[in-house]
Amino acid sequence: MGKLLVVGSVALDTVKTPFGEGTEILGGSATYFSTSASFFTTVALIAVVGEDFPAQHVAFLKSRGIDLTGLERRPGATFRWKGEYTHQLNEAHTLDTKLNVFETFRPKIPEAYRSPEVLFLGNIDPELQLDVLQKVQRPGLVACDTMNFWINGKRDALWRVLEKVDILIINDGEARALGQDSNLVKVAKLVLSRGPKHLIIKRGEYGVLMFNDQQIFGAPAFPLEDVRDPTGAGDTFAGGFLGYLAATGNRSPAAMKQAIIFGSVMASFTVEAFSLDRLRILDYKEIQDRYREFKRLTHFEDIQ
Amino acid sequence: MGKLLVVGSVALDTVKTPFGEGTEILGGSATYFSTSASFFTTVALIAVVGEDFPAQHVAFLKSRGIDLTGLERRPGATFRWKGEYTHQLNEAHTLDTKLNVFETFRPKIPEAYRSPEVLFLGNIDPELQLDVLQKVQRPGLVACDTMNFWINGKRDALWRVLEKVDILIINDGEARALGQDSNLVKVAKLVLSRGPKHLIIKRGEYGVLMFNDQQIFGAPAFPLEDVRDPTGAGDTFAGGFLGYLAATGNRSPAAMKQAIIFGSVMASFTVEAFSLDRLRILDYKEIQDRYREFKRLTHFEDIQ
Repeated sequence: MGKLLVVGSVALDTVKTPFGEGTEILGGSATYFSTSASFFTTVALIAVVGEDFPAQHVAFLKSRGIDLTGLERRPGATFRWKGEYTHQLNEAHTLDTKLNVFETFRPKIPEAYRSPEVLFLGNIDPELQLDVLQKVQRPGLVACDTMNFWINGKRDALWRVLEKVDILIINDGEARALGQDSNLVKVAKLVLSRGPKHLIIKRGEYGVLMFNDQQIFGAPAFPLEDVRDPTGAGDTFAGGFLGYLAATGNRSPAAMKQAIIFGSVMASFTVEAFSLDRLRILDYKEIQDRYREFKRLTHFEDIQ
Repeated sequence: MGKLLVVGSVALDTVKTPFGEGTEILGGSATYFSTSASFFTTVALIAVVGEDFPAQHVAFLKSRGIDLTGLERRPGATFRWKGEYTHQLNEAHTLDTKLNVFETFRPKIPEAYRSPEVLFLGNIDPELQLDVLQKVQRPGLVACDTMNFWINGKRDALWRVLEKVDILIINDGEARALGQDSNLVKVAKLVLSRGPKHLIIKRGEYGVLMFNDQQIFGAPAFPLEDVRDPTGAGDTFAGGFLGYLAATGNRSPAAMKQAIIFGSVMASFTVEAFSLDRLRILDYKEIQDRYREFKRLTHFEDIQ
């Protein structure tokens, strides 16, 4: 298996933005995450799809070198999400969610997957996240995501997950809900006292903040003239971030910051097209070039 | 007079935030701007106050070395603003505005002020901004601010102002209204084609973006555990930004970026207390220290 294991969703999305729409296009947290990470390292995926999941999507994920031994195919329909963005692209309006086979998803960990170097627990029920953690040898690095539905509905289980993870990656609304405080610095203090060594807060078009006990690091989002579909930007960020860390094995503060930039680079590509269409035609040279553009975007001189 | 001339408002604010309140405290765009700039350069101010404006506030501005020859005192009451912030500190809710003597403000430029090196046209009627521009020798650098009220109500006059300024400093909502587009990169292209060489977009707690024909530069806001009152943050930013540029006389891309950071530093102090109370006790060493903290906040290593 790969160095990096991800547990999450694979979905068919129907998305409308001011710049176009896509019907039953490839989506899901594990899909964006693993495709993004595959530019940096070897990835294995645990997810479930229905009988109707198109073979071409399986072929695409395979073409990215993603290990699909853990992609379960079950009777029934694949998870569907339908959403819309207005000109305020930072926020999706969910029109319809059909969990289908994802509703009864219980991650099964193939024997060969039980000692991943890096593990990403995508946004699923915290009870299932705990279950996955019990089934694998403690990886060198564990990160997780969550959402307001679990923060509000399964807070205790979520805190038990957080005791066991190294990195929590959530958006700013989720951070405020979890910390029950509008001030992100205060939220970070609370979260870092409860388990995670790093808190990464995604702020969409406003970039990202990383908190740990040594520092705060902030990066803007890459300013783009054409943002067509923000779906999957957060999972793409997480995939680039953890993919880079898995590839290098380096966990130094400097590497963590570089990983934040690689994650931001990947997210900036994803939003340029619907579904994973931009990532389909992306090459590593473009990733490096945009990393250097990020440096120019944010670099300033010291004062004497 | 000083190197830097500012035209704007001096006000008495009544402000409520989740962290306290202040009644008839010192405020106004020219007040925040000039106090912030005074840490870097010599400043002269053009504004109007009523008979009721407290002598202690005049004494404070004088103590900052600000030239008040242009501070007109007229019969009537000083401009009052009353506002409130909820936990979403990024947006003020105006409860009451009493323009008072500010309503009929026509900036008078003392003879000694007619050749400023740097000019900041605070948020006033674009017709008055044009009037000021006609009364002074073209300064080496002109920046201006505006607001949605003028963007919607005096768009043509505002474009005439913009033909004559080097730098437009506005917030993201104003930028979108001015450019009639939600995408800030597209807005920047439009604005830069109409006069200004630089567009600076303030995004409150999300930091700032600067666009010019050579580059885009982005900086996050400094993450603070205690934000008590965001009033004046934008004008304080502009004061630090232009104060630094006026002090150095350097207009290189590197100096512009350093100026953005100094502006961000000054704004980060202002929001720590009500009114200008944090700036009253600030010293230049603290400014330098926070500049270095900004460097740590945003710096990351190149890739090979």
